[in-house]
Amino acid sequence: MSGRNFPTAQDAENAFYEALERCDLEGMMAVWAEDEDIVCVHPAGPRLTGQDQVRESWARIFSGGPRARVHIASQVAISGMMLAVHSVHENFTLEGENKGDARPAPVVATNVYLRTAAGWRMIVHHASPAPAQPEPALREAAPKMLH
Amino acid sequence: MSGRNFPTAQDAENAFYEALERCDLEGMMAVWAEDEDIVCVHPAGPRLTGQDQVRESWARIFSGGPRARVHIASQVAISGMMLAVHSVHENFTLEGENKGDARPAPVVATNVYLRTAAGWRMIVHHASPAPAQPEPALREAAPKMLH
Repeated sequence: MSGRNFPTAQDAENAFYEALERCDLEGMMAVWAEDEDIVCVHPAGPRLTGQDQVRESWARIFSGGPRARVHIASQVAISGMMLAVHSVHENFTLEGENKGDARPAPVVATNVYLRTAAGWRMIVHHASPAPAQPEPALREAAPKMLH
Repeated sequence: MSGRNFPTAQDAENAFYEALERCDLEGMMAVWAEDEDIVCVHPAGPRLTGQDQVRESWARIFSGGPRARVHIASQVAISGMMLAVHSVHENFTLEGENKGDARPAPVVATNVYLRTAAGWRMIVHHASPAPAQPEPALREAAPKMLH
């Protein structure tokens, strides 16, 4: 589907959020594993499985064109040889939004990546709206490596 | 904290949902890894990290006593040597609920397990309410093993 190769799970995550900001459907789908077991849950949405459902959902989301910047914060990451799990806060800023405004509540996302023959690819994206409240302890720790 | 040992990620998942049904706080915490990087997101809730926040949240949830049965369905599982990821639908049935009633919408959950020296333990539980709608293709496939 794409010649893009992500040497690390973080590279795949960066490409995911770049594609999301640009509303780049092909860039988005290049991040996902070519596997029918991929799982995607958009905020307040149902669970979608497989390439067709996931692609259709992003096509629908992207149909309005770019309108938000997303800043990723508070990553907690744990990585094995074959799987990597990142928990992040997605902070969206709408285009033209007054910078002085109270920021919208973050979306909390669990992203899972699989090491494939073609590099690291996303297999799970589970996002849900979080109530607005500061985290007691901001965590920006380096990923924990397993063995 | 507990002498319980879960030989597989599925054993840990079974213990997790048994503890949830029984409102068994010690049983619940015995499933979680003793790690400050554990992540728990309850439906519509904020992201909680670390043993203290996770324990407090379950204590609060369990304070009302047992009141629901949970049936787990539509599992999609992917397992590596050190990490296992399960996506499930949690179908709750309240005690005394009329069996003929329309069932409440499921909760979609992403559960991540880590192989530790003390067996498999949960490191991520991310749950969010899903809108009521049938899944196009019910999936009850066996876990996919990596290598």
